[in-house]
Amino acid sequence: MYPTIGQYGLYTDFYELTMAQGYFFYGKKEQTANFDYFFRTNPFKGGFTVFAGLEDFLDFLSGFSFENSDIEYLEQQGLKTEFLNYLKDFRFSGNIFSVSEGEIIFPNEPVLRIEGNLIECQLIESLLLNILNFESLIATKAFRIKLVSDKKIFSDFGMRRAQGLGAIHASRASFIGGASSTSNVLAAKLFDIPVSGTQAHSWVQSFDTELEAFRAYAKIHPENTILLVDTFDTLKSGIPNAIKVAREMEKAGNRLSGIRLDSGDLAFLSIRARKMLDEAGFNYVKIIASNQLNELVVKSLLSEQNAAIDAFGIGTELATGKPDAALDGVYKLAKIGDKPKMKISENIEKVTLPGKKQVYRFSDSEGNFYRDAVLLEEENIEDVKILYHPVYPEKFTSVQDCSFEPLLHKVVENGSSLLKKKSLVEIHNYLLERAKLLPNEHKRFISPHLYKVGISKKLMETRNNLATQLKTNK
Amino acid sequence: MYPTIGQYGLYTDFYELTMAQGYFFYGKKEQTANFDYFFRTNPFKGGFTVFAGLEDFLDFLSGFSFENSDIEYLEQQGLKTEFLNYLKDFRFSGNIFSVSEGEIIFPNEPVLRIEGNLIECQLIESLLLNILNFESLIATKAFRIKLVSDKKIFSDFGMRRAQGLGAIHASRASFIGGASSTSNVLAAKLFDIPVSGTQAHSWVQSFDTELEAFRAYAKIHPENTILLVDTFDTLKSGIPNAIKVAREMEKAGNRLSGIRLDSGDLAFLSIRARKMLDEAGFNYVKIIASNQLNELVVKSLLSEQNAAIDAFGIGTELATGKPDAALDGVYKLAKIGDKPKMKISENIEKVTLPGKKQVYRFSDSEGNFYRDAVLLEEENIEDVKILYHPVYPEKFTSVQDCSFEPLLHKVVENGSSLLKKKSLVEIHNYLLERAKLLPNEHKRFISPHLYKVGISKKLMETRNNLATQLKTNK
Repeated sequence: MYPTIGQYGLYTDFYELTMAQGYFFYGKKEQTANFDYFFRTNPFKGGFTVFAGLEDFLDFLSGFSFENSDIEYLEQQGLKTEFLNYLKDFRFSGNIFSVSEGEIIFPNEPVLRIEGNLIECQLIESLLLNILNFESLIATKAFRIKLVSDKKIFSDFGMRRAQGLGAIHASRASFIGGASSTSNVLAAKLFDIPVSGTQAHSWVQSFDTELEAFRAYAKIHPENTILLVDTFDTLKSGIPNAIKVAREMEKAGNRLSGIRLDSGDLAFLSIRARKMLDEAGFNYVKIIASNQLNELVVKSLLSEQNAAIDAFGIGTELATGKPDAALDGVYKLAKIGDKPKMKISENIEKVTLPGKKQVYRFSDSEGNFYRDAVLLEEENIEDVKILYHPVYPEKFTSVQDCSFEPLLHKVVENGSSLLKKKSLVEIHNYLLERAKLLPNEHKRFISPHLYKVGISKKLMETRNNLATQLKTNK
Repeated sequence: MYPTIGQYGLYTDFYELTMAQGYFFYGKKEQTANFDYFFRTNPFKGGFTVFAGLEDFLDFLSGFSFENSDIEYLEQQGLKTEFLNYLKDFRFSGNIFSVSEGEIIFPNEPVLRIEGNLIECQLIESLLLNILNFESLIATKAFRIKLVSDKKIFSDFGMRRAQGLGAIHASRASFIGGASSTSNVLAAKLFDIPVSGTQAHSWVQSFDTELEAFRAYAKIHPENTILLVDTFDTLKSGIPNAIKVAREMEKAGNRLSGIRLDSGDLAFLSIRARKMLDEAGFNYVKIIASNQLNELVVKSLLSEQNAAIDAFGIGTELATGKPDAALDGVYKLAKIGDKPKMKISENIEKVTLPGKKQVYRFSDSEGNFYRDAVLLEEENIEDVKILYHPVYPEKFTSVQDCSFEPLLHKVVENGSSLLKKKSLVEIHNYLLERAKLLPNEHKRFISPHLYKVGISKKLMETRNNLATQLKTNK
């Protein structure tokens, strides 16, 4: 049996536990640590990422504990009794600083920082990465679709192709990114997302004729009938039958909501369908399209082919974030006690930023996003006028005349959430507000302009000094 | 809060419920229906698919019911009281026929058939597709890795990049496909999978020096120490320090289990590492490699580059089935009462096969898989000597001299599972046994030979007659 959310202590990689046991026996459990969550590449070769999953992660975190059967299981895996006794009462009791859910974020800036004892910071790593990586991936995908949907709407139809229970997170993140509804009833209930559904071919096939099937559906759902018109022949049978039923519905004082195209050439068929519906006097009947859609197809249908589509149902690619399928987020140690920590690497790009940090966003005189900057937390932002390229110190830029705002806010204090519970609509609206401030050149799909994330001089020096020290004294 | 497995009645697409309500009010709830589950394309441009997820699906199905809050929620969505009263006591009470979990399967053959009243068959569609599509995708990915791993082993390290709770299914399916262990502790506990883990960079960084970190880990986990050697400099620091610790462990009567390479050129570094370890007298120390691996990289490392790698840790691509990210499985109505049903389509390839069917596998005189065939259940397999191409009737082949076996077995009767609970090891062993019988030309990665699935003459005629009838009488 799958556990409820309160029983997810084992939802972690095993090495988190073996390392935690080590920290426990080496007296490191009282050491304060800081870890950063960040990613290295925007998904879908895009120019931005949408941060999502925060509330969901905090929900799981609040139930991250070990029940008796978990402790027994870990004992069988060779973990030691003294450490297991500690785990029995384990609860995350640290602090979390995070960008807001729905924020536009960029590679190589810490978008979430965890501060706590070394054991608790380590134990929650896998859970954090699992949820934030996935929901941010899907919210980004959904928002990309939203960007090209003009004023059309799209619904998440992805549950049947989603990655098992990942479907639940996918529906949540899709709505944050811009889906107007979901077909996934469980997700709709859990997260208060509008639920939507039409009919499948099996409905049509279960009657002797298509017309009979359409009539039957309209009779039982007069307030919301969307007829699937491609079971036999879209233009010769499906649409003519839908028009008959639309006429009958009008006589009964109702209105047919829409028709759905699920195969064939969606541009061609939608234009023909629109014409047939309009000529029959049903210009209020909407045309919904589905079948292997993604942001590129939607863009092409609407902007190149003038498809007469009012709404899209999007499944596989939305629910799985295909083709990327994952955001490459990582979780790295930045400080223990008062010692900044970093990972050096053969690749300078993979060197991490040490110390407790804050991220600031600088905006130009029109209020548009201009640069992000990573600073040491102790720095006074007022003193920072120059940002440095994180890798090449000879590249720098002035932010003298920019306004700025901190992006990391405390959302958990001593294990308790400070987060004002937001509806997903509020999170989505926040995304819209922020995305408006992101210049368009970062939003295009083909070779988007790189949004620059710099570091302060002090952070650069701290990193370089520490790197030198590590290389000479390993 | 996420529900437990017994509360997944709402884990469905909304249209399943609106259609079910329609069936209910049109007196169709007593009609017996047959639905087929099949897919159209092997994932990863491969020549086969591994069927997985059956037991997991049946577990969810056994808990597929509606609790009070679900009923209230559905009432708010406009569903009618009489139908909701029916849902209160809903339990799947039909029959399921399925190929065995771990079976090698091919496109366009029904690999699972559901028989029950129309409502129950419809309601469980989304759940079935969600779990079987995903686990089959991942089991296939894992087995592809297994095929090129020679005698090396690989572990599932994917939880952090998996699609939320999809991680649990991913770990299960990975093990069926050939992973030797998982890092995901919850999945390991739920499905009795060996759990494995090494250490992260944060362990090494939490000590003042790498050597100190290695010594500390070895002291606390002397029975299973795998040292991560790339935190500072693999060849100049990591491996020399690992050798020091291996020497100290020997003195204390223990043995270092392995080292792990997680960056840089894995072929080059593993060969150098092997040489250094061997020269120091530690030929028993294994070399584990991780970092963005997939079946193509593993194949290249082992067969082209002679990498000295003993085991792989595979994350993102294994846990997400990247780049496909989904299997395109569908669920189609085949019969209602005594009427065969089918979906006709503009594309003949997308026409479905009507009626209650059985799938047979024919083998050649050496026992190797030769052809699969879809027959009407009522047909006597002994009478079927010729198989027809499903689309082009002029293409046919004789199976006169072949042995045969039915692939669909009853696994659920009147809602109760008949399935003898198998361990995942047994399922994996079944896969190995079956895969041995699949000729190699279907297993290669580049342009694999198409394994042919034919249909019987009677099924072809039934389909063609029904198609004609549907086109003239819609």
